[in-house]
Amino acid sequence: MRQIKCLRLVSSHLTSKMRSHTYIDSLGSASIMARILDGKALAMEIKKELKQKIAQWVSLGNRAPTIRCIIVGDDPASHTYVRNKVEAAKFVGIDALTINRDSDITEEQLLSEIQNLNEDNSVDGILVQLPVPDTINERRVCDAIAPEKDIDGFHIINIGRLCVDLPTIVPATALAVVEMLKRFNIDTFGRNAVVIGRSKNVGMPIAMMLHSDKRHESGLGMDATVTICHRYTPKDKLEAYCRNADIIITATGLPKLIKADMVKPGATIIDVGITRITDENGKSRLVGDVDYEEVSKIAGAITPVPGGVGPMTVAMLMHNTFQAAQSQANKSN
Amino acid sequence: MRQIKCLRLVSSHLTSKMRSHTYIDSLGSASIMARILDGKALAMEIKKELKQKIAQWVSLGNRAPTIRCIIVGDDPASHTYVRNKVEAAKFVGIDALTINRDSDITEEQLLSEIQNLNEDNSVDGILVQLPVPDTINERRVCDAIAPEKDIDGFHIINIGRLCVDLPTIVPATALAVVEMLKRFNIDTFGRNAVVIGRSKNVGMPIAMMLHSDKRHESGLGMDATVTICHRYTPKDKLEAYCRNADIIITATGLPKLIKADMVKPGATIIDVGITRITDENGKSRLVGDVDYEEVSKIAGAITPVPGGVGPMTVAMLMHNTFQAAQSQANKSN
Repeated sequence: MRQIKCLRLVSSHLTSKMRSHTYIDSLGSASIMARILDGKALAMEIKKELKQKIAQWVSLGNRAPTIRCIIVGDDPASHTYVRNKVEAAKFVGIDALTINRDSDITEEQLLSEIQNLNEDNSVDGILVQLPVPDTINERRVCDAIAPEKDIDGFHIINIGRLCVDLPTIVPATALAVVEMLKRFNIDTFGRNAVVIGRSKNVGMPIAMMLHSDKRHESGLGMDATVTICHRYTPKDKLEAYCRNADIIITATGLPKLIKADMVKPGATIIDVGITRITDENGKSRLVGDVDYEEVSKIAGAITPVPGGVGPMTVAMLMHNTFQAAQSQANKSN
Repeated sequence: MRQIKCLRLVSSHLTSKMRSHTYIDSLGSASIMARILDGKALAMEIKKELKQKIAQWVSLGNRAPTIRCIIVGDDPASHTYVRNKVEAAKFVGIDALTINRDSDITEEQLLSEIQNLNEDNSVDGILVQLPVPDTINERRVCDAIAPEKDIDGFHIINIGRLCVDLPTIVPATALAVVEMLKRFNIDTFGRNAVVIGRSKNVGMPIAMMLHSDKRHESGLGMDATVTICHRYTPKDKLEAYCRNADIIITATGLPKLIKADMVKPGATIIDVGITRITDENGKSRLVGDVDYEEVSKIAGAITPVPGGVGPMTVAMLMHNTFQAAQSQANKSN
């Protein structure tokens, strides 16, 4: 824990945008707590912006953007996720409908359902909530959605475009991380960033945008030096990379993977992990990959879990939908 | 420079596959030179394997694989590259034809030419030598080639597939690097690898394969921890990342970027850079990114320039062509 006796020093860490929290501990010395990157508040800000933009869009004679969410089977988590998305859509003025299908739907039937939505000019965004049953090939489903309606950004063409820095629809969680770095003014240029986790929907696209050239066409490049760590990165190496990092982005689902002694004082920590645990009091709660209590005493900025990347993901999905609606309207004009 | 007095120690560095070079310097002590990863010899080995496989393929009643190389304008370097490819094709038994077009060809004409080759069942691989004149959009050209005939692996779908670890056609230089690491038995699992340069045809796909999961469908994953450095990585950070690396892959075109004091003893150095310089004697010659003379005294293994990744690139292009021919034949059967 850094302890700073001089409060003037503390104040130099404050910004008008998002204040660090200082407190006086029992010994009377001031400690700096990391600036909390409040994803919930930022998501609300973004949704309000979107609401305004969409209202303006509609006032110009365009129809409201539309999403169709297909959900296969009755997994409660999937239903909760979709419900959250539909709620956010309503808030911003996107017309969202959920299409429920039994888990015995065949791949062929699902693909044909998607094809109908592809051809329906009143639909801007199509989302198939993953996972789908094992009888259905997930990649084939993602690639069946018309790339311009693929608001999840999982279509192979959209992934390819992201990886060569072309404008595209970016997977919402990855975009949420990049948007948080931007909106919270975290400097990435030439900085050491570590991405932990190499999933194709989260770690990989984040690493792509973080290391890429800002001047390229997508405008999403962040010019950081990026190290991609994963399950086969030895523990001591992971620790060394983290201690050297200005920015750590972790997406593993391993609670308390990132401990205070792995963090450089002042570093930015973005915690994408989300795991339900039963704590020592037998209470169920959600935690990230980071030992939040300890790390927040060392880091310069940190996202909480819950209330960090999670709500931002839903907001960015709404952003993607409005983007899809605009680009399709522009094409058909 | 490591100096080892005991020759028994030296011999422990020798493998039957590729011997380290030892010499006795003027003080009488033995120094270890890095194992030279001879890309020219390996390329020849691969081309001979391909020649045999293609001969067998043809003996089973298949026609010889075919490439059509389109070259626009009269850039001498482009003509040399294409000539080398056609020569290699002839050697392995691939039927290669060069199609020369004037630099005033329109994009529309070029795309229509490509379309004709896409529809021609007697053509397995199509290659448009880059760069094309400024009047022509390079991305549109790459994406006009049918993905299954795209032996350069530049089509957006092939890039997307590479980035999600699906079997695909991989850009030849990136594949050359991965193939060299495999054939020379360089262990990558959990190792620290640094990729310098973030070009979309070289650095990016190399970083993709190096960090990815070997168990994934493409079989190209190498499970290394990968750091992507580039022009905005500060010099001192680049040096630190390199000194920490078990494997350095450099693709910048900056001669002597990698110096001996940036290299961990025993590290593997893959030099993709190739620059024509005029040396102190006024002689023109090709050099890589690495201070070869000094670094080869520290590294465990190193690729020379020329004679390293360059010839391997051409061999892997032939590999890609045969792969394209086989997959198209299998589809039409």
